[in-house]
Amino acid sequence: MKIEAYIQNKAELCREAGMKLASMQSRVKNQALELMSKKLKEKSGLILAENKKDVAAAKKSGLSNAMIDRLILNEKRIDEMCKGLKEVISLTDPVGEVIKMWKRPNGLTIGRMRVPIGAIGIIYESRPNVTVEAASLCIKSGNSVLLRGGSEAIRSNIALANILIEAVKESGLPETCIQIIDITDREAVMKMLKQDKYLDVIIPRGGEELIKTVVENSTIPVIKHDKGVCHVFVDESADFDMADKIIFNAKVQRPGVCNALETLLVHEKIAKRFLPVTAKSLSGAKVVLKGCSETRKILKGIEEAKEIDWTTEYLDLILSIRVVKDLDEAIDHINFYGSHHSDAIVTSSYENSQRFLREVDSAAVYINASTRFTDGGQFGLGAEIGISTNKLHARGPMGLEELTTNKFIIYGNGQVRE
Amino acid sequence: MKIEAYIQNKAELCREAGMKLASMQSRVKNQALELMSKKLKEKSGLILAENKKDVAAAKKSGLSNAMIDRLILNEKRIDEMCKGLKEVISLTDPVGEVIKMWKRPNGLTIGRMRVPIGAIGIIYESRPNVTVEAASLCIKSGNSVLLRGGSEAIRSNIALANILIEAVKESGLPETCIQIIDITDREAVMKMLKQDKYLDVIIPRGGEELIKTVVENSTIPVIKHDKGVCHVFVDESADFDMADKIIFNAKVQRPGVCNALETLLVHEKIAKRFLPVTAKSLSGAKVVLKGCSETRKILKGIEEAKEIDWTTEYLDLILSIRVVKDLDEAIDHINFYGSHHSDAIVTSSYENSQRFLREVDSAAVYINASTRFTDGGQFGLGAEIGISTNKLHARGPMGLEELTTNKFIIYGNGQVRE
Repeated sequence: MKIEAYIQNKAELCREAGMKLASMQSRVKNQALELMSKKLKEKSGLILAENKKDVAAAKKSGLSNAMIDRLILNEKRIDEMCKGLKEVISLTDPVGEVIKMWKRPNGLTIGRMRVPIGAIGIIYESRPNVTVEAASLCIKSGNSVLLRGGSEAIRSNIALANILIEAVKESGLPETCIQIIDITDREAVMKMLKQDKYLDVIIPRGGEELIKTVVENSTIPVIKHDKGVCHVFVDESADFDMADKIIFNAKVQRPGVCNALETLLVHEKIAKRFLPVTAKSLSGAKVVLKGCSETRKILKGIEEAKEIDWTTEYLDLILSIRVVKDLDEAIDHINFYGSHHSDAIVTSSYENSQRFLREVDSAAVYINASTRFTDGGQFGLGAEIGISTNKLHARGPMGLEELTTNKFIIYGNGQVRE
Repeated sequence: MKIEAYIQNKAELCREAGMKLASMQSRVKNQALELMSKKLKEKSGLILAENKKDVAAAKKSGLSNAMIDRLILNEKRIDEMCKGLKEVISLTDPVGEVIKMWKRPNGLTIGRMRVPIGAIGIIYESRPNVTVEAASLCIKSGNSVLLRGGSEAIRSNIALANILIEAVKESGLPETCIQIIDITDREAVMKMLKQDKYLDVIIPRGGEELIKTVVENSTIPVIKHDKGVCHVFVDESADFDMADKIIFNAKVQRPGVCNALETLLVHEKIAKRFLPVTAKSLSGAKVVLKGCSETRKILKGIEEAKEIDWTTEYLDLILSIRVVKDLDEAIDHINFYGSHHSDAIVTSSYENSQRFLREVDSAAVYINASTRFTDGGQFGLGAEIGISTNKLHARGPMGLEELTTNKFIIYGNGQVRE
């Protein structure tokens, strides 16, 4: 009950602050972001000291080296946070933009205006920089934010959040428009997920387990940032050199992210000639290959890809390969086994490129390019709060615009309905 | 278990059909809609016979006259369904529209394409015409649909759906793209709400109780069509005649709908002069007035408005009235007690009109016009599947565009990420 009251109070304050923040000017919001950047630099010593405690505790509790690496802060990483803040400042404030305006025969002028969503709950893991990223994007788009970071980074997150909150207060934004949950009890998350009276949306960022917990327990709408089981399909008419480069990039350049390649599909008519080419490139980067029975006739000695492989996000230097009969089989495979994230075709056929584009049911569908481009920055949308795997509201890289909703505005001069 | 298997099977077939329907041409979808209209006319005898049985059963079970009136079909109402179908045919198909396209420095061309959401579940009550309206909008926007109507209209709904399904089959659309749940067990709804593997969204249309059940039990994203507690605020500078006409229209023209007026707010500086004017007009339509203490000093003898009144959707000739200190108090009242549906200000002040527009957190915000215009047709958006009170994805009248989502399409020529 004590935790419930604590969380409800935070959520209520978040809503209240959001109502005020919604109509604040871009100039004021940008000043707050500027001040955040300044204060992060000034107080980096404090941040690093708190972070050291987190890292020590994490080492003691036996967290993996990869996880510890994500947790560690240093001057360079703080500089990156400040750079991120500057980028958010430079983005156009979407709030108040009237997207469309039209006139009705009765003289009413009707428009759609972008407005903040309201109060946003962010639940995230590990990387403390998310505290700054998420908070700054919410503030810029006029939303208040309730942050809940992972327990392993609790001291770093609190130190960062307190600096942001200081900047908020000094710049005249509503005091509670950024708040952090500073207890690590799991129950706090559960209670947070039931604050549908106060929070308008929950954005979970983290592993599969976290996403599942949130989706199953939330009574608040959730915008998921789920896993990516991404595909490249090499069509019969593909340029081998291009296909090879795209596959290598999508698999190897950064295997631990959601837009990295996990399953390669190859048209049966070219499999015999193409698979050895790409296997050779990939072996140079020590990628472990797993194949269907057809693939294993061509690439002798590789592991067998089992049913479970087609739905697995390896996040590692592992690639499953399947030979398919044609474009239809490739599209069916992607739509059935994939995670509807990012998928690419390599082809010289105009017709097949267009069919792939239309029929693959994914957030981002590529012709002749690496799936690794699915990213707000790469798409030219600016900083992103994540990559949504929802179909509703936001799909794909989720930037400032996706942190807003619309309202209809209607200018009349006395019209009544007949 | 039997019901669960039945529902799951329907949902699975719905998803499959949706995948195929997504890439079908507008021409084919329109042909199916044409055929639906033709068949509804041809088979009106059958529909009316089944409807008679529903009406007889409803009378026997003691349903209110208002409910029975909504249930009754006749040739005129069937003609209206056909007219509705023609209207949907005339609307532009949103599927495949590329909203935006831009080029990146690396040569990638990136666009956002409208695509169907997928498989949609509709849960509705009473009026059988929703069967035709909802199904036709889903089909036109490339979505398959699983219908679940109220038990009191089960025979009418099945008769209508079977005719639509015949038309679907004859026009070559995927056979199961329209389905109806033909059992009336409440458990069927509960099972339907758990089909998150197959259904992409649930749209409930009906009373508060229905909406609540759906929101609390669904693991599928819900687009609510909730109640409307709509306000008119008469500002100090309002034109009395205009304000009076807007209030009368918003309250009286059709009191039983969600965009009708429920609470009137009046600026204290004009309350004494204005309230008698509007009370006189409203008394002509036998509107029952309830007021705050200030109101009751001016309009003697009217009922007291209690706390509960400010959040009540009367859907009847009842109006609650409150005198407010200023614009701020009006906005606070609306944002606190209202349902964020449709709210209007009547004013001559430019500044107040703009503040009201920005600060009232509702789906539709009006200056000097009746709230009754919140409607897809009145806004010029074409037929609507309802008026969403969600903030995410769709807000306000929900037409064909809101039945679609986007995907990013990326044209490359071998780009890889550096």
